[in-house]
Amino acid sequence: MKYGIALFPSKKLQDLVNSYRKRYDPHYALVSPHVTLKSTFDAEEGDLEQITKELRQTAKTSQPLHLEIKKVSSFSPVNNVIYLKVEPTNEMQELHERLHTGALNSEPEYAFVPHITIGQNLSDDEHSDVLGSIKMLDIHHEEVIDRFHLLYQLDNGSWTVHETFLLGKESE
Amino acid sequence: MKYGIALFPSKKLQDLVNSYRKRYDPHYALVSPHVTLKSTFDAEEGDLEQITKELRQTAKTSQPLHLEIKKVSSFSPVNNVIYLKVEPTNEMQELHERLHTGALNSEPEYAFVPHITIGQNLSDDEHSDVLGSIKMLDIHHEEVIDRFHLLYQLDNGSWTVHETFLLGKESE
Repeated sequence: MKYGIALFPSKKLQDLVNSYRKRYDPHYALVSPHVTLKSTFDAEEGDLEQITKELRQTAKTSQPLHLEIKKVSSFSPVNNVIYLKVEPTNEMQELHERLHTGALNSEPEYAFVPHITIGQNLSDDEHSDVLGSIKMLDIHHEEVIDRFHLLYQLDNGSWTVHETFLLGKESE
Repeated sequence: MKYGIALFPSKKLQDLVNSYRKRYDPHYALVSPHVTLKSTFDAEEGDLEQITKELRQTAKTSQPLHLEIKKVSSFSPVNNVIYLKVEPTNEMQELHERLHTGALNSEPEYAFVPHITIGQNLSDDEHSDVLGSIKMLDIHHEEVIDRFHLLYQLDNGSWTVHETFLLGKESE
């Protein structure tokens, strides 16, 4: 089964991002706006217990994350993905690294650039048009995120949450 | 903000249900296949802490649920909703009731008929055609569900998970 780990920002930011994704992101209907902490990975259902045990431990010993957005950017020319750039913090980098060790050991495909996708799979022309107009917007957003989620992918490509992990908290 | 509480069945059952929802359920892209335990309700973000605290307590003192599907049914003539009927159990009924007391106190709109929607908003003709052909299928499915989820609704109608609650377990 395919799994992934992500942060969901506040409803307010998700609604803003969706207003663009609706037009520019073919994955709009498959998953809510998110910051990917660990990209799609394969795991057997039998490994899930160990994985979630480690995730609980990781969450408990991490702190809530400060999420700040100051600008729109793009992964072009690598690919035509337009995104809200999440200002990197040591805490987020460290969490990302911990999610690639232990039972979750794997080499990240790319260096970790935390982001929230606004648009993807755009033609070159559309990409530069959209990026040009969105860059004009004065986007500044800050919030604290106190949880992350382990998700799994259904056959139609959509994602369902398996479990939520609270950062820096003993669950009561 | 609008919230709801639901169970997600296994990926296998979600994939099966989605193969029908894709054609017959306009909510297909808004939420994964689920059993609603508490329909949409309004809550202030300020109430969320108390609500989640009670949900953790409810989960901890409930047991995993036996989910059995033996047949397809419909809410017609009330409305043209076709669904997999979930065999009622005392445990599920009790969980449903506990999710309508305390901070979550509210009167359910309908008697609790646990189900997984396959199709809705169908015309009368389409409803009887689809129901007739799906009823021919020999559906029998059993599984154990050990968690439920509190979700919130975005402005576009889609649902994001706020938190997962494990049934009958102290989180580690």
